[in-house]
Amino acid sequence: MKLNGRVFEEKIQVRYQETDQMGVVYYANYLVWFEIGRAGIFKELGYSYRQLENEGLILPIVESQAKYRRPAYYDDLLTIRTRITEFKNSKIVFGYEVVRDKDNEVLCTGMTTHVFCNKEMKPVHVKRSHPEFYQFCLKHLFVGGE
Amino acid sequence: MKLNGRVFEEKIQVRYQETDQMGVVYYANYLVWFEIGRAGIFKELGYSYRQLENEGLILPIVESQAKYRRPAYYDDLLTIRTRITEFKNSKIVFGYEVVRDKDNEVLCTGMTTHVFCNKEMKPVHVKRSHPEFYQFCLKHLFVGGE
Amino acid sequence: MKLNGRVFEEKIQVRYQETDQMGVVYYANYLVWFEIGRAGIFKELGYSYRQLENEGLILPIVESQAKYRRPAYYDDLLTIRTRITEFKNSKIVFGYEVVRDKDNEVLCTGMTTHVFCNKEMKPVHVKRSHPEFYQFCLKHLFVGGE
Amino acid sequence: MKLNGRVFEEKIQVRYQETDQMGVVYYANYLVWFEIGRAGIFKELGYSYRQLENEGLILPIVESQAKYRRPAYYDDLLTIRTRITEFKNSKIVFGYEVVRDKDNEVLCTGMTTHVFCNKEMKPVHVKRSHPEFYQFCLKHLFVGGE
Repeated sequence: MKLNGRVFEEKIQVRYQETDQMGVVYYANYLVWFEIGRAGIFKELGYSYRQLENEGLILPIVESQAKYRRPAYYDDLLTIRTRITEFKNSKIVFGYEVVRDKDNEVLCTGMTTHVFCNKEMKPVHVKRSHPEFYQFCLKHLFVGGE
Repeated sequence: MKLNGRVFEEKIQVRYQETDQMGVVYYANYLVWFEIGRAGIFKELGYSYRQLENEGLILPIVESQAKYRRPAYYDDLLTIRTRITEFKNSKIVFGYEVVRDKDNEVLCTGMTTHVFCNKEMKPVHVKRSHPEFYQFCLKHLFVGGE
Repeated sequence: MKLNGRVFEEKIQVRYQETDQMGVVYYANYLVWFEIGRAGIFKELGYSYRQLENEGLILPIVESQAKYRRPAYYDDLLTIRTRITEFKNSKIVFGYEVVRDKDNEVLCTGMTTHVFCNKEMKPVHVKRSHPEFYQFCLKHLFVGGE
Repeated sequence: MKLNGRVFEEKIQVRYQETDQMGVVYYANYLVWFEIGRAGIFKELGYSYRQLENEGLILPIVESQAKYRRPAYYDDLLTIRTRITEFKNSKIVFGYEVVRDKDNEVLCTGMTTHVFCNKEMKPVHVKRSHPEFYQFCLKHLFVGGE
């Protein structure tokens, strides 16, 4: 089975609070934006992250990477382009691109890896623990699904 | 009964992330520091905020005020001076001063008001709901207590 | 001369990063949202805050107040309703309401006061120092202006 | 020439604002702490990051990585252990470990890569552009330096 590579987009605008005294966006904020990107996937598919948590499935992060290519500035309109690059029974990997709308510059790329856990933070096999969500993902994220 | 007016101090150092493109600390961070100040009171008295939450007592905020007198800069060593200005059965009010160590300038003053609630966010009368904590406060925060 | 009381609206969605372990939005974030609200005024009028800074006019904050009525939760769609409640030669006061879209609950109200300063952080009389901006405000923010 | 591998330590305590509704520290905050770690190196050596910026040398980040092993909780006392793992004419790489004091658990490891730039954000060769700083680093960070 192969991921369909669908790209999901979220729009944000740089907040004053996100800048630092260098006059650009502080680097930790890209990780906040990555989160908006990955949450957006489930929201758009109709299975919000909030709903997931209510069902006792959480996705704690185990790894993050980011490459910072160009600075973002206050007020910039940005698009966070997110896709799932790996989906296993035990974990999920997201890939990100943060693009500035007005000049199409890719400001930052990155990835995050998450493991499926229950509310007690124990790893689960999502196929067994949350079959409904698993089937939902199969349908929407894999080639031939939809 | 009268509050003893004891002032509690916490030290912090301005983080790069807390600055903005104006080159000074972004104004919302003072509220984060106020929290460090009031949490420090209970920690110093030996009744941490974490412990309070474990006992089912939370102190949601209902009001905040801050006056910004002078900017704080990256790397500044600051003292948050906090005291309790009102303590009732249903609520508690904290007063704050943020002072820069090297020149003793008062950068910001403020206050926050909190109501005593249980885990379901329902207001409680702390004297009845958490008598041990209440007695503890009587002893440490009021004139003639200690 | 009388302010026209026009209300400007900005939409945001609560980020995961903005929640705390109480399961609600951390209180300092409302001040970040207030900023989005007031920046939105100038953006909508066609005079962005970025442009103002480029022209050497900055609006450092001197006071903030917030009343927290109900908690905001992750993923909530919110509207920040902002209006200018005072506009003087030396200062400007904004009033805010943060409303949850789905139930129209007012979660938080507040105000911030700002003084007009030049890049050296010296107070200016905006009528004299930035007449173009001042005329712009007269036209758009006062009764009979537009 | 070989780096001396000296490890620098900074102490922090988890703030309420840094937690999220999962009850643990939000993952972007580790990058804020990494910054405290690397700034601490220069501070301890007597060449603060603020001073560097005043001399027109800035270190914009080009890459970050973090591995999240265990969650940090509110109030945890943590040590950020930082060392320089690479020092070139054009760039510098830092390695980090965030350790919880009470049980010595390594909560997070990571690295960041930075390029030396002037105030116009143009890459510089630090040996030529800031020889004093370069000599300072040679002395304090390399085997045989001190």
